[in-house]
Amino acid sequence: MVVVTEPGTSEKQIEEIIRVLNEHGFDVHRSTGVQQTVLGAIGVHPEFDHRQIELLSGVAEVLRITEPYKLASRTFKREGSIFDIGGLKIGGNNVVVIAGPCAVENEKQIFTIAEAVARSGARILRGGAFKPRTSPYSFQGLGEDGLKMMRAAADEYKLKIVTEVMDKSQITLVEKYADILQIGARNMQNFTFLRELGTASKPVLLKRGQAATIDEWLMSAEYVLSGGNHQVILCERGIRTFETATRNTLDISAIPVVQKKSHLPIIADPSHGIGIRDKVIQMARACVAAGADGIMVEVHHDPDHAKSDGAQSLFPDQFAQMMKEVRLIAEAIGRTIG
Amino acid sequence: MVVVTEPGTSEKQIEEIIRVLNEHGFDVHRSTGVQQTVLGAIGVHPEFDHRQIELLSGVAEVLRITEPYKLASRTFKREGSIFDIGGLKIGGNNVVVIAGPCAVENEKQIFTIAEAVARSGARILRGGAFKPRTSPYSFQGLGEDGLKMMRAAADEYKLKIVTEVMDKSQITLVEKYADILQIGARNMQNFTFLRELGTASKPVLLKRGQAATIDEWLMSAEYVLSGGNHQVILCERGIRTFETATRNTLDISAIPVVQKKSHLPIIADPSHGIGIRDKVIQMARACVAAGADGIMVEVHHDPDHAKSDGAQSLFPDQFAQMMKEVRLIAEAIGRTIG
Amino acid sequence: MVVVTEPGTSEKQIEEIIRVLNEHGFDVHRSTGVQQTVLGAIGVHPEFDHRQIELLSGVAEVLRITEPYKLASRTFKREGSIFDIGGLKIGGNNVVVIAGPCAVENEKQIFTIAEAVARSGARILRGGAFKPRTSPYSFQGLGEDGLKMMRAAADEYKLKIVTEVMDKSQITLVEKYADILQIGARNMQNFTFLRELGTASKPVLLKRGQAATIDEWLMSAEYVLSGGNHQVILCERGIRTFETATRNTLDISAIPVVQKKSHLPIIADPSHGIGIRDKVIQMARACVAAGADGIMVEVHHDPDHAKSDGAQSLFPDQFAQMMKEVRLIAEAIGRTIG
Amino acid sequence: MVVVTEPGTSEKQIEEIIRVLNEHGFDVHRSTGVQQTVLGAIGVHPEFDHRQIELLSGVAEVLRITEPYKLASRTFKREGSIFDIGGLKIGGNNVVVIAGPCAVENEKQIFTIAEAVARSGARILRGGAFKPRTSPYSFQGLGEDGLKMMRAAADEYKLKIVTEVMDKSQITLVEKYADILQIGARNMQNFTFLRELGTASKPVLLKRGQAATIDEWLMSAEYVLSGGNHQVILCERGIRTFETATRNTLDISAIPVVQKKSHLPIIADPSHGIGIRDKVIQMARACVAAGADGIMVEVHHDPDHAKSDGAQSLFPDQFAQMMKEVRLIAEAIGRTIG
Repeated sequence: MVVVTEPGTSEKQIEEIIRVLNEHGFDVHRSTGVQQTVLGAIGVHPEFDHRQIELLSGVAEVLRITEPYKLASRTFKREGSIFDIGGLKIGGNNVVVIAGPCAVENEKQIFTIAEAVARSGARILRGGAFKPRTSPYSFQGLGEDGLKMMRAAADEYKLKIVTEVMDKSQITLVEKYADILQIGARNMQNFTFLRELGTASKPVLLKRGQAATIDEWLMSAEYVLSGGNHQVILCERGIRTFETATRNTLDISAIPVVQKKSHLPIIADPSHGIGIRDKVIQMARACVAAGADGIMVEVHHDPDHAKSDGAQSLFPDQFAQMMKEVRLIAEAIGRTIG
Repeated sequence: MVVVTEPGTSEKQIEEIIRVLNEHGFDVHRSTGVQQTVLGAIGVHPEFDHRQIELLSGVAEVLRITEPYKLASRTFKREGSIFDIGGLKIGGNNVVVIAGPCAVENEKQIFTIAEAVARSGARILRGGAFKPRTSPYSFQGLGEDGLKMMRAAADEYKLKIVTEVMDKSQITLVEKYADILQIGARNMQNFTFLRELGTASKPVLLKRGQAATIDEWLMSAEYVLSGGNHQVILCERGIRTFETATRNTLDISAIPVVQKKSHLPIIADPSHGIGIRDKVIQMARACVAAGADGIMVEVHHDPDHAKSDGAQSLFPDQFAQMMKEVRLIAEAIGRTIG
Repeated sequence: MVVVTEPGTSEKQIEEIIRVLNEHGFDVHRSTGVQQTVLGAIGVHPEFDHRQIELLSGVAEVLRITEPYKLASRTFKREGSIFDIGGLKIGGNNVVVIAGPCAVENEKQIFTIAEAVARSGARILRGGAFKPRTSPYSFQGLGEDGLKMMRAAADEYKLKIVTEVMDKSQITLVEKYADILQIGARNMQNFTFLRELGTASKPVLLKRGQAATIDEWLMSAEYVLSGGNHQVILCERGIRTFETATRNTLDISAIPVVQKKSHLPIIADPSHGIGIRDKVIQMARACVAAGADGIMVEVHHDPDHAKSDGAQSLFPDQFAQMMKEVRLIAEAIGRTIG
Repeated sequence: MVVVTEPGTSEKQIEEIIRVLNEHGFDVHRSTGVQQTVLGAIGVHPEFDHRQIELLSGVAEVLRITEPYKLASRTFKREGSIFDIGGLKIGGNNVVVIAGPCAVENEKQIFTIAEAVARSGARILRGGAFKPRTSPYSFQGLGEDGLKMMRAAADEYKLKIVTEVMDKSQITLVEKYADILQIGARNMQNFTFLRELGTASKPVLLKRGQAATIDEWLMSAEYVLSGGNHQVILCERGIRTFETATRNTLDISAIPVVQKKSHLPIIADPSHGIGIRDKVIQMARACVAAGADGIMVEVHHDPDHAKSDGAQSLFPDQFAQMMKEVRLIAEAIGRTIG
């Protein structure tokens, strides 16, 4: 923490600030400038509330310096993490494609879509069995039946599975069927839940909260990592801004920013970011070009009759076209899809 | 839903749009203008995804009209709701003051603060027993012990209790001790949890999510109401904006907006909104002046040593001063604190 | 500026960072912690781009400390500024009310409204002669004719005038008629214009830009102050956020924040903040309760036929009611309207 | 405009709403549903303020349907516009690269950079002669001398020039030297200025305002177009959001959104979007992959000593690397750089 005093602060005030910092266990180094004095408060006290110093007389500004996360940080682990999910690599040079419907609706639907996305090169099947819906009057998912159908379809077409877990009571059940546990944006700061995921046996795909800064997102990853689960994949899916022309604003710049701050793989979800089918391909291309370690897109063979999010789901032939284009883009930057 | 066609859309395209709308169960009324045709699609299909129409050829814009919430709406219930919580009225002409520490820390602390806030006119004691913290390394609350201490202190000073429930596993426990169940901002869209709260026996205080629009907030209230729990109190606590000079941006305009849209009482939390003690009184005054049905503020007798949020907690004498001022402001607009 | 190194940075890297800082004229004080080294770079070089240091090898974070504004800062001038505008005080204990139509439309209109607002206690007449409109097809204002009508009406009812100047070519003209020059939110960072206003002979009312942080706003005030015009009144009028239920989000917390950072008076404009008549009174009360040095509201005797912004204009009798209420609120906090 | 009534609105109230709409010149078509009545108000009255209807008794919601812009709209002109700037095409299949320093500093600097960017394939030289700076104490540009140097350098290396015009007094001067007039983000809603640009003889590159929605941006383009200048190029350069890890949030989704709504070419500026050199290349790739008609990046041969924005300027060899990568990406999507 760095404390900057106001111009004209008296020696006595400065001494009092130093006294308080010492009392809280900080070593203080003082730099006296012409206008202002700067106090470097050295020591790691993550629970300390810097606003306490902000309120002291003579203090102009308090700047926090200790990064709140450790295990998620690239200074903790220099090399980018690569996770091996039953032979499939996430991270490194590989760009993985996750595809599937918003929700599992029935056996025929999930088999049809799994076959289509596998044929075009997707490696992981997505699909919700438990659906968090904004309205209590909407379709809520098939539950365990949906998970079973999804597993069968994935096995048939040699795909891995990612599916959402909505609270800790579902973890054990979902672990039985899925390869990756998806944590929704709304749960990104559900800390008791994150703690439980720290002891889960499967990797976690952590979606960014709609109003979460990149640092808060990494802090949420830290919760899972500190619980002992070292496999956290980050997923950018759009933040809330004033722009209403799109469902969310896909923050593509989060990709290079996260890659500098953290060793964890980061993928992006253009379907939720843009929210409408006819612009998904352009955004998927942008994500891969920006360096994402993967993309997750919604695909449905009959989106007009999808129970949810049909409008942002690609048709199988659009998905095939997207794959063709992102494959070329991955090559252009020296990476491979697969 | 209203569908607007692009200028120059052909008769055939318009007929196709009407066909699709009919297929989905809508009655369609057509208005033909010089440049554009407007189709009114009448019918209540809350699960319908209007983006499906947006993608049809010739469609310029689709506007949703059915309010997604019903029970929370003022068109459903004209009179403002007044809840009776063991003799204390929330809503109506009354402006209630909720005060207490961020977290219950020990018996002495909660009794000292309860005594102080009761003496100045608070009617409800706040305090967390389960603390959702951004960092996994911070104080996490005393759990049931904290609830017991809080209940004893509240009974001693004739206060009601509001305290946060973090997930459904805690509902039964917290109901035993608390008068009102607080749902944190991060849980505002945790829909499985909201559904559980619909069957809780105690009123719910629903904080607004940091990135939630007012309509989404009312929709979350609808989840609880539709489960059968008719006592939902809304609590504005600041939204996330680009401004970083304050912890959040307290959206005081949400008070009149909610009061026009909904019959539910709305209170405001200036402590979390502004995030620093020296500006809480000014913001508390503004909330009461804007017409809030109550305010919730953090108070601590020794904030410098509080385990959390000390910097935004008022000293007891500041709280006494705040009460004096908000009492006069309430009177100025024909209401009473109590 | 404070530079924080990454854990594990070598002595050689640190020396290189210090060398670069010295080269740019900074004195460097070094604090060596267990994990990280903190370098305090002392010296005032407002033009220095701190991102240059961010890019050096081993640098984890660069924190700016020098406040970019000086003349606007409360550390420069401890006492709140009070401006005397022909006998009317702005700042201090006084809360001034500015009222009038969005635009001057004709003589009868401006006289009718001036009479009504003066009768209820407004002291300054607002009204636009040059209107910046989002659409090129809308009413653009009466120009100098409007200014003349406004001056005549203000003189008749003993009011001062504030009106918008849209670019430097209008300054001389508007100074002839107005007592205060209003700078619109869209011009808040039009720096060549701000520089010109530094030599204007009349006080400036500087509206906050829709996307401007409080620090950027104070920096814009600095431009005017540094040009020699010491009378800058700040006006909060709402910021752009994700919430679309209101035209803007009136950032009432900016009032106490500005009052701590700066000595300049700050008023608020609830009409533009909330954007619709039926909620203006509640917001006006909140602004006064929060400690604003004044409020500016739109009033029209026939808002249904106003050429612009009729929907957010109060009727004269609503304005009279608002005055009654804000007078009581001002008294409740020890201030007076007038 | 579409007007939706509240459930339970009386026949008399509905008739009154229709009467008011008729009075304002709208034809009204009525659709009566079970719960609500929907009124389609047909007619083009761009100056009409729909909030006037919002305030009528019985009105639940008013939805605007007329697009506020016409000339900028793709419904006005189906084919994407292609501008010919002295033989260089902007729009169509071509992806143009604009590069250069933030500001022209001296002859040697601008010639060195012009040579470097031309060699790697840039076609337009950027560089400011008039600099809008946040601080009044920073470098303000070389003015006409800078323009002359820039013209000479551009001619030497067969480049076109884009440079910022800050207000209408500079238009004639800048037109003498530049091929494209850049309008900065802060001036995007300076409507008197936009009107002047409508009669300028050179194409306009209109940067998006930091807080402007896509519709407002297109409306600003409409101002220029309606003045008779048909050559407007849009430039996305980042919007302001809550995320502070980047200077702005580059809204890459604006690219496909604009391309659907408008026929005007759209380019993107990753340098200002991300604000730091080490992430510019990734973002530039993303913009091209998303379908931008061009990119604009800052390049400096000695960014450590640049007078402004050095930290976001690429080194010439980084620019060469970027060109290699975006060329492959353009090819991957069937376009060409040039």
